[in-house]
Amino acid sequence: MTATNPTACLLVIGNEVLSGRTQDANIRFLATRLGELGIPMREVRIIPDVPQTIIDTVNEVRAKFTYVFTTGGIGPTHDDITSECVAAAFGVPWEPHPEAWARMERSYPPGGFNAARQRMATMPRGATLIDNALSVAPGFQIGNVYVMAGVPRVMQSMFDWLAPKLQGGPRVVSRAVHAIGLAEGLIAEGLTAVQARYPELDLGSYPFYRPTGNGVSIVAKGTDAAKAEAAIAEVTTLIADLDRTPVQGEPPE
Amino acid sequence: MTATNPTACLLVIGNEVLSGRTQDANIRFLATRLGELGIPMREVRIIPDVPQTIIDTVNEVRAKFTYVFTTGGIGPTHDDITSECVAAAFGVPWEPHPEAWARMERSYPPGGFNAARQRMATMPRGATLIDNALSVAPGFQIGNVYVMAGVPRVMQSMFDWLAPKLQGGPRVVSRAVHAIGLAEGLIAEGLTAVQARYPELDLGSYPFYRPTGNGVSIVAKGTDAAKAEAAIAEVTTLIADLDRTPVQGEPPE
Repeated sequence: MTATNPTACLLVIGNEVLSGRTQDANIRFLATRLGELGIPMREVRIIPDVPQTIIDTVNEVRAKFTYVFTTGGIGPTHDDITSECVAAAFGVPWEPHPEAWARMERSYPPGGFNAARQRMATMPRGATLIDNALSVAPGFQIGNVYVMAGVPRVMQSMFDWLAPKLQGGPRVVSRAVHAIGLAEGLIAEGLTAVQARYPELDLGSYPFYRPTGNGVSIVAKGTDAAKAEAAIAEVTTLIADLDRTPVQGEPPE
Repeated sequence: MTATNPTACLLVIGNEVLSGRTQDANIRFLATRLGELGIPMREVRIIPDVPQTIIDTVNEVRAKFTYVFTTGGIGPTHDDITSECVAAAFGVPWEPHPEAWARMERSYPPGGFNAARQRMATMPRGATLIDNALSVAPGFQIGNVYVMAGVPRVMQSMFDWLAPKLQGGPRVVSRAVHAIGLAEGLIAEGLTAVQARYPELDLGSYPFYRPTGNGVSIVAKGTDAAKAEAAIAEVTTLIADLDRTPVQGEPPE
């Protein structure tokens, strides 16, 4: 199924990203995968483990975007408060989820499913589970909010399970050309004109600094591959006219 | 000088981060450096190159946080719209900045300071410049908003120049202990009690997955080093009581 221009927002919940302790690895993964599904990520917010901030932010963004994904804060410790905050945002009780509870209880030796782990099977009323291949603790969905783990490999496993169930929109394709030795200030005027001729495309200009040389990449994105190719062909001519050598695609890493 | 509990918000402006094309490298750098200055980063938003979104977001967060930093969107191309949007947010004209203009004009050969590059010397009225050692194009400050480049090495150079001029708060210190083979679900109850005894600290629990072994790090953060050390000493005892081997500090990468 395809939806009409669905949008996504990601909430990264956790003091550890805001303090610089942890390098986030989830934003780029989800941005890329959602883009491939035709669900462009339109905003990311990284917020701290503060209940009212989480509650208010969830309520703000779930009204603004088609899909809201959260990462982080669903473990067993005192600083894992995402689940209870999402319940509060939806104004529903936070209570044992029978299926999650049964699964987790089975997976621990007698006495191992302690109070802390029981919190991981406690969810907003009405939540449905998001499975994953790596951990017995599930994420969950309620309304348009998808609550996932913060540990990248667990989050990725949850998203793999979830992806086929999401309703994407038209697939965005991208075409690119780059040139070593090109300066943005030289090509900017020409690019403005190309962008004006292709208003349905998103034309981006990105300087790069690589051991193999500095230069600029020009990327055209849109749902019409032929138009993206035509725009990049025009940019390729612009680059050649500046006596630089255009090379199709993005520069090697 | 120290301020009373200053806070920071970072706006990462650019479609390329939201599309997954670019891995952000600025969030962690700024989170770490601002934390060292006693200016904790309390929120990050990654937003697209959409004028009204930039304007509204700047106005929302400059009212909520002591400092707002932006990265991205100050180059010469059509998709670089941060500067004019910040002018609109402040309700001031966007006009040539005499000093930036003169500097940039001097740095190009005759005819090289073209219309695209002139945009980089066009700023909100009342802006003051943020210098950097790498590029002739400066960032700028207006009110509590600091507008910086998106290219990490240029942004870092701008922040190096800026850092001594910011008014920090009490320095936050962190102490940590970790243990291989420790599960969060086992230590969670004890940690809750330690956190309750040290309400002025922020006690975080972070599972890790390393080639050398999986385990959990416990990090105590706060402005009182003695209290952070005392809390970590209590956690160290908890870990030993669980028959795991506590090791001071964070696990090696």
